Amino acid sequence: MDCELLTVGTELVLGLVQDSNAADLGRALAASGVRVRRRATVADEAAEVRGAVAAALERCGTVIVTGGLGPTHDDLTRQAVAQLFGKRLRRDPQILATLEAQHRRRGVSPMPEANRSQADVPEGATVLPNPLGTAPGLWIEDEAGRLAVLLPGVPSEMRALLEREVLPRLRARMDRGAPARASAPADRSGGARVIRSRTIRTTGVAESALADLVREAAMSLGPAVTLASLPSVDGVDLRLTAWELPPGEADAELARAGDALRAVVAPHAYGDGDEDLAAVVLLALERAGAKLAVAESCTGGLLGARLTAVPGSSTVFLGAVVAYDDEVKLGLLGVAADAIAEHGAVSEAVVRQMSTGVARALGADAAIAVTGIAGPAGGTEAKPVGTVWIAVLWHDVVRAFRHVFPGERDDVRRRAAQAALNYLRRVAAGTL
Amino acid sequence: MDCELLTVGTELVLGLVQDSNAADLGRALAASGVRVRRRATVADEAAEVRGAVAAALERCGTVIVTGGLGPTHDDLTRQAVAQLFGKRLRRDPQILATLEAQHRRRGVSPMPEANRSQADVPEGATVLPNPLGTAPGLWIEDEAGRLAVLLPGVPSEMRALLEREVLPRLRARMDRGAPARASAPADRSGGARVIRSRTIRTTGVAESALADLVREAAMSLGPAVTLASLPSVDGVDLRLTAWELPPGEADAELARAGDALRAVVAPHAYGDGDEDLAAVVLLALERAGAKLAVAESCTGGLLGARLTAVPGSSTVFLGAVVAYDDEVKLGLLGVAADAIAEHGAVSEAVVRQMSTGVARALGADAAIAVTGIAGPAGGTEAKPVGTVWIAVLWHDVVRAFRHVFPGERDDVRRRAAQAALNYLRRVAAGTL
Repeated sequence: MDCELLTVGTELVLGLVQDSNAADLGRALAASGVRVRRRATVADEAAEVRGAVAAALERCGTVIVTGGLGPTHDDLTRQAVAQLFGKRLRRDPQILATLEAQHRRRGVSPMPEANRSQADVPEGATVLPNPLGTAPGLWIEDEAGRLAVLLPGVPSEMRALLEREVLPRLRARMDRGAPARASAPADRSGGARVIRSRTIRTTGVAESALADLVREAAMSLGPAVTLASLPSVDGVDLRLTAWELPPGEADAELARAGDALRAVVAPHAYGDGDEDLAAVVLLALERAGAKLAVAESCTGGLLGARLTAVPGSSTVFLGAVVAYDDEVKLGLLGVAADAIAEHGAVSEAVVRQMSTGVARALGADAAIAVTGIAGPAGGTEAKPVGTVWIAVLWHDVVRAFRHVFPGERDDVRRRAAQAALNYLRRVAAGTL
Repeated sequence: MDCELLTVGTELVLGLVQDSNAADLGRALAASGVRVRRRATVADEAAEVRGAVAAALERCGTVIVTGGLGPTHDDLTRQAVAQLFGKRLRRDPQILATLEAQHRRRGVSPMPEANRSQADVPEGATVLPNPLGTAPGLWIEDEAGRLAVLLPGVPSEMRALLEREVLPRLRARMDRGAPARASAPADRSGGARVIRSRTIRTTGVAESALADLVREAAMSLGPAVTLASLPSVDGVDLRLTAWELPPGEADAELARAGDALRAVVAPHAYGDGDEDLAAVVLLALERAGAKLAVAESCTGGLLGARLTAVPGSSTVFLGAVVAYDDEVKLGLLGVAADAIAEHGAVSEAVVRQMSTGVARALGADAAIAVTGIAGPAGGTEAKPVGTVWIAVLWHDVVRAFRHVFPGERDDVRRRAAQAALNYLRRVAAGTL
């Protein structure tokens, strides 16, 4: 089935807040077989909301609206939709009781009149209870097959209602096949068709080199599957999307094509979906029984922060020394003053000594060390901004790698941290 | 003047990428006095793009479109707009030459035909050169006052073209007052009216307590100024917005109201706009001639990462010890084994010793130390998940603070880092 989205909020139109609801809804609906045809955003103004809901119902028959349900928004959305469906608003005693109980618990009694209006419901609408907030969702449909779903604008509340109440009802509606409009693709095909995707995460390989690797696999994709390459400072994600297939077929195509792709990019692929490289590295080290120490200069704590963001990292990660000042490299890490004087703090000699020094100081059998010039200042002709040395210590062997990363200070630091984790992953796996 | 926004992209509708352009455009236009009435997003499909552009021109007369200009999108937007303005596309020799030169530099020669179509321009359109990419922007207006501005979808290119080419032309158009439509608010008022905002950043104070502090100042705001309080894990931002005032008046109102607000929340306010607390702290320490060391347990490097994200932080920040494992607290920081045995690693005794230990080890005169239970595991009844001890050392005096932060692992860590920076800010400023 098709639908349109409408997000309501003056602050959204002004760009003062990001419209995360639109993206969350788009993904969740597509994965359930509901195709979003168009989305729109309007200010908290009655005429704008009514006009946009009317146009969406006219064009498509189904509209999902977020925002404009709270007590401060003058009930724009509820009133607009009630009018368009020719229904009157009545005050729902059960919602009212829930709202009053919530206010009493917060010590606000009596409840302000503005909040009472949150209990107003168009006649015949289904109330979708909101476990996280005051404004319930509403589901309004008529004999002509028109459907409007109203959800609160607070992202966590919207997502909870979408998962628990809206998606199950939409799936049931598609399964029934009625009273959806005759023009909807779901009805033509005799079953729901979904848009699903699978992502394979790679790093340490240029997008163009990756394109060469996957060329053959990409040509053998089924006609309903596309491949996109999505570069970021953390690497290149390969996203396979299966378009408008029955759910079982989509999953089978993505499994087959994903496994084939992953095989050809094997040494560069570290995970699926939204897997984090730090978590992958920690798991590998835990299996190998290794303890990890980190020495950071230009990344300044970023590597430690990424590793400790993973719950349970303390079984592997002992700690880090952020040796930002050269005196700290000498004192805590035991780097030789000669090495800094002769080669500079950003050099192979120093990064190697940083890795052995931190492993010794913390009693670790694995270590990574990073030193570089993140910019904007500090670059020279021989060592431009972006120059980074990375060392990996693994079973008493140290290997060092030099990079000149592109981008600004933040990019250089993030790229350096990701590259350091990836070298450790590959060294530990024996693929480097 | 009024305008509508249209963002084009199938991946936007599906929620696979965040629509950052819509928010960026909304903010920049509002601050320049262009009011966004509505925005819409459609898939890369000719009929959808044409329908949406036509509706926006019909309703509002001015539309700004992003996306759908690249070589892979089949020139949807260019063709749709040319049709709606009754113009033919002609191939622009200057754009073609620029495109060919760019491709030669990248070693792609001859240029693919798909890229040649990027040089197609509706007759009479003004070409807006794109300094960062291949697809130029286009500015198309007609005698009836209709205006369509087409911009590339790549966010950095969109922003560059908006700042350099589009906003100056829109301002000139508003100053001319013609051929804008008679219904635009700018014309009724006899001068452009802008929406501008000013943000005052606070932390370490609950939103409800802040509301009490600002109550009086909020009541003395002018009729065209509103105050919003925006809580996040980093604190509460107070945002003043001046609505639809002439630019000079808006700036004066925001300066007056902002200064009054800042005075009443003084000890909790650390900055304006998007100022970062770490940068504020580093500047204060630099002025005091102090050198800073950090000892982190549960934050795992987050404090170091935040401090070193600030360019020039090396003049103040010496380094950090991430003592994740208790052995590292004993070894590198000199924490007494007795203290851990008696009070536990998350205790006032240990956090105090961490701060003095790291100051001694790194030769610093200022230090912060953090130890806590970020979760999800590790909590007890006496020390639940979220329990964090923070110590600040300043001129040989150590002060320690206990918190139980709400939220999940990531929230607890971010709140702890922000609180630690804020204690140092206040201790150094003598306001605590």
